[in-house]
Order: sequence, then structure tokens, then C-alpha cells
Amino acid sequence: MERREAGPHDVVIEIKYCGICHSDIHHARSEWGPTTYPVVPGHEIAGIVTQVGSEVTKYAAGDRVGVGCLVNSCRECAPCLRGEEQYCLQGSTLTYGSIDKDGTLTQGGYSTHIVVTEDFVVGIPEGIGLDEAAPLLCAGITTYSPLRRWGAGPGKKVAIVGLGGLGHMAVKLAHAMGAEVTVLSQSLKKVDDGLRLGADHYYATGDPATFEQLAGTFDIIVNTVSAKLELDSYLSLLAVGGAMINVGAPAEPLSLSVFSLIMQGRSYAGSLIGGLRETQEMLNFCAEHGIGAEVEVIPASGINEAYERVLGSDVRYRFVIDTATLA
Amino acid sequence: MERREAGPHDVVIEIKYCGICHSDIHHARSEWGPTTYPVVPGHEIAGIVTQVGSEVTKYAAGDRVGVGCLVNSCRECAPCLRGEEQYCLQGSTLTYGSIDKDGTLTQGGYSTHIVVTEDFVVGIPEGIGLDEAAPLLCAGITTYSPLRRWGAGPGKKVAIVGLGGLGHMAVKLAHAMGAEVTVLSQSLKKVDDGLRLGADHYYATGDPATFEQLAGTFDIIVNTVSAKLELDSYLSLLAVGGAMINVGAPAEPLSLSVFSLIMQGRSYAGSLIGGLRETQEMLNFCAEHGIGAEVEVIPASGINEAYERVLGSDVRYRFVIDTATLA
Repeated sequence: MERREAGPHDVVIEIKYCGICHSDIHHARSEWGPTTYPVVPGHEIAGIVTQVGSEVTKYAAGDRVGVGCLVNSCRECAPCLRGEEQYCLQGSTLTYGSIDKDGTLTQGGYSTHIVVTEDFVVGIPEGIGLDEAAPLLCAGITTYSPLRRWGAGPGKKVAIVGLGGLGHMAVKLAHAMGAEVTVLSQSLKKVDDGLRLGADHYYATGDPATFEQLAGTFDIIVNTVSAKLELDSYLSLLAVGGAMINVGAPAEPLSLSVFSLIMQGRSYAGSLIGGLRETQEMLNFCAEHGIGAEVEVIPASGINEAYERVLGSDVRYRFVIDTATLA
Repeated sequence: MERREAGPHDVVIEIKYCGICHSDIHHARSEWGPTTYPVVPGHEIAGIVTQVGSEVTKYAAGDRVGVGCLVNSCRECAPCLRGEEQYCLQGSTLTYGSIDKDGTLTQGGYSTHIVVTEDFVVGIPEGIGLDEAAPLLCAGITTYSPLRRWGAGPGKKVAIVGLGGLGHMAVKLAHAMGAEVTVLSQSLKKVDDGLRLGADHYYATGDPATFEQLAGTFDIIVNTVSAKLELDSYLSLLAVGGAMINVGAPAEPLSLSVFSLIMQGRSYAGSLIGGLRETQEMLNFCAEHGIGAEVEVIPASGINEAYERVLGSDVRYRFVIDTATLA
């Protein structure tokens, strides 16, 4: 694979680590519509700047930087102007599998280098290792954004559904924001981890008593699980005026009784990653609070095995490829 | 029917007008679970204070006042303390059909007098006729509250689904708040009314082209229709970050694709009437903007016929009983 020559606004990045996101697997296996092959997945990229274009002002060679799910957008529509490039009305350019401005197919971070326009590069502050920073670029911002938008903080009760790659970041972030955090996981298998990561409480959703006991409790529920849930049961856990936000989605439609929303003034919402400004804010927040992802660093030769373990929920909590092993 | 003797905190009100709300019909006909008869419905009450208890400080004989859906609540739970008595965790005392603090069954406004504790009485400002004020106590506050909570105002595009008793108030209120207002009605039958009431645009939802044309348009959709809608079609009309709020609900569950929410950061919410403080705020807002309900005043002898016309959507836009005809 060839990367483009660096243009005047481009940054050339030597990739050090790239996280493995569940969506990489969907994409690599054509599970989200036909994939154009060859494809190089990876949108949790952390590395070092090696070269910058003549007009680049934000970065210089040697800088620690990251690239997430987006590498460009129209920059003119209302969401782009608000800094919500992920909702670009023209369709943002994804880090892999998108048609780039020059007509080529974008290729992701399971790779040694990447060339990205400086506005879609974020700085990784000192104090976060590049390996534990990589997953922040997708799993981190995907959970940070709804927690911020819906006001997680002191005095707020926040539940995180699912303790996987996204869920473990959500627990760390909500805890650092000062909220009282509860993990809702199918079983109590990972309870020790959950409490260590910052949860105050941990309940098994496989136990029907959980839903009775926690009825009307939470101001915010972030659902990181893409499985088809009994929506009304989860909504019943929200306090008056509370919101449940999905950051993943099942392929099939869900069933919803509107009374679950009306009688306590509740909301059910969706959230997609986050914009560039907010991604930088999240990285700064993580540095300030000493937060990184919990990672298992693997060589490139371990990717297939890692995919199988991701599908089997056997990862605590994110695989990160050491790209030095790609050579 | 006897009303209780006025206690020290009670206000005795001579009812002048009482609106007919669709829920009166459900209740009178035991369609929402078994009704305890005899029942006197009515929770859109406007009248004049004739007597006050010894401790009453807010009202005096001769004052123009209103009573809505609530006549009491626990006053101690978090929602009550926030002024959201409609979401009282102990269950608020409804104006009719609830067990009152003294163990009797509450009875509503199709009546000549009512006795209500002063904290659940609101003042009706000069400048709004008591007949056109009565429906504000339910239809008005039910639509005002979500419009305010979700930020209807200048620069915001608001759609109102359904142009009935609630919908016509939503149009007037959203227009007065400065929003750009669109009515989404099954047909164009009431288009002249809609524009006269303050709508800027009017579309028929029976025409599939409407959904293509308006995709991604609205910041706020207030759905006043209780029929079972194609939820994903309506959610597709929301702009990035927009919210659709139901103030009524179908008995059957709805089907929802979570992608309708995630890909544009949308929300789907419910809202139930409003609290006492907000109801007073709404009445003051209406007086300031010269807003009342569009009413058809009927004698008590016309109630059964009015019920049939409400069920046939043949009312523009609220029947109000002249209680002087009850004698």
C-alpha cells in the first residue's frame, strides 16, 4: 500500500500502535455491506510525526499524535462548523474504506505510516503512553461525548451497560468526571475489574432482581452493547428526566413502549463517536486524570487470534497492535 | 357531589369553564383501567376564588384562577422539590379519579365549585378570557413544557405532529417562542387554520414525498398524536442532534431502529404535562403574547355530543363547558 505524498496541510505520522475495534472485524469481513478489498482497517492510531507539509502550523516532527475514525469532512455544513465532523452532512471521510478527496480509498492504521490533513490529527499529551492512548481515539471519544453532552458529573448516577472495550473506558471517564458509576453486565464475572476501574456498584443484568432493585435510579445510562436488549426494562432504570444513550446498535429494530418515556420524562438517544475538538478535549482530560485504556499489546501476527478473542468477549479490554512488528 | 370544607390552606373556586380533554373520555368510559364511579371528569378548570382558608396567602376572593391535572403531591421527593410535581415519586394526586389525602375520591371540573390547596392553584392573568384559559391548564402546559425543555426559540425549526387540542396550542406556543413552525398533519384539510395559528409551513404526512422533502430538517418535533406511528420515518425528519418528544402514547409498543438515533445523534423523549411553577410561567407567557386556546363553548347538555365529536376529530380546537349551565 502506498500513502499519498504529503501535501501542504498534511502530517506524516509513523504509527506506533493501533487498537483493534470491533468495527474493524465487521469491515474486514464485509459484515456491514460489501467491503472494497484490499482493506487495511484500524482507526485507533497513535504515533509520532515524522514530516509536515509547508502550511502545517499545529504539528512538527517528533510530536506525539493520534488519528481516530475520521480523516476529513466537508468543513462547511452546520455540524462541521459546530465541530461535529462525525455528523458531516456531506458524509465525513472515514479513516479506512472511504473514498478520499483524491478519489483513492482510505486505508487505516494496521500500517507503519499514515498521511492525514492536520485538522484531523490530535495531539497526545505527555503522560499517556502511546499504546494506552490508541484506543482513546475511538472507544474513548465514543463514550466521553455522550457522558459530557448528558451532563455526567458530581451528584449524577451513571450506569454503563457492558464492560468491554467501550464500557471499560466509559467507567473510567464517568468516574473521573465525578459521577457515581454502576456497571450493568450480564454476569458478575468481571466485577473485580469493574470496581478497580472506578465503578461504585456492579450488577448482573442476567438476574431479574437487578431491574426491581434499581428501578428509577440513573440519570444517565450509556449502553455500549450492540445486542438486542429489552429496551423497556432498561428505560425503567432511569430516574425522572433521565436519558439512556446507545453508542452501538443491533441490526434488528427494537420494541419500545412510549409510556416508558412519558411517565417519567425520560429520553432515549444515540451518539456517534465525537468531533475533532471534543477528541482533543477528551485526550487532555485523560492526561489530567491519568487515564488510558487497559490494553494487551500484540504483534501483527496475532491479529487473527485477537479477532477471535474479541468475538468471544475474551479481551481486557483492548488489543493494540505494535506496528513495529509489521515489518 | 359534596366538596370538602375549606381547610386553612384551601381555596374555594367557583368554576366558570372546564375544557374537555381526550383523557376525560378515556376515564369516563373506563378505557384506562377500571374507573371508580361516580366520576366527575375535567382537569382544565378556570374560575373565580370565592373563599380562602385562614392560612392562604397567595389568593383572595375575586381572583381569577385555574386548576390543571394535579391537586396535590408528596412535596418531599426530588421531582416535587424541583417543581416537577407531575413526576412525584409517591404518585401525584390527580384532579379526578385519585384518592385524596383524606381518603375520598377526587372529582374534577365538570362542576360548579372545587376546593384545592393553594399550592396547586395558579393565577390566570388579566387579558386571557377564562374560557380560552381553561384548556391551557392541560393542553397548554403539556406542549409548553417540552418546547421549553428542548429549547424552542429563534433559529430553531420545530415540527408539530397533529393539529388537535394539543397540536393547536403547540403551534401557537412555538410560534410565540420565536421558532420556525411546521405542522405535520395527515392531510391538508386544516392548512388554513394551521397557518393562521402561527405555522410557517404545513405538510401532509399522508404524502410519502413529505418525508423525502423534509429529511434532516427539524431541531424539535413534538408529537401530539397517540396513534401508532412509523417512528423511524418521523425520526428521519430530525436534524443532527434533534429531539422528538411524545406527549401522547399509543397502547401498543412501537418499533425503532437504533441507527435512526445514532447516526445523527438524535433523541426520542417523552413528556408529561408540567409542574405548578411551569404552569404559572406558561400562563404568564400566554398573557404576554396574547395567546389563548381556540374554543367552542358548549352547555353541559352538549357533553355527550362533544365527546363523539372529539372522537371524530371534529373540534377546532377545544370544547369548553360553560358551567353556569350545570344548575
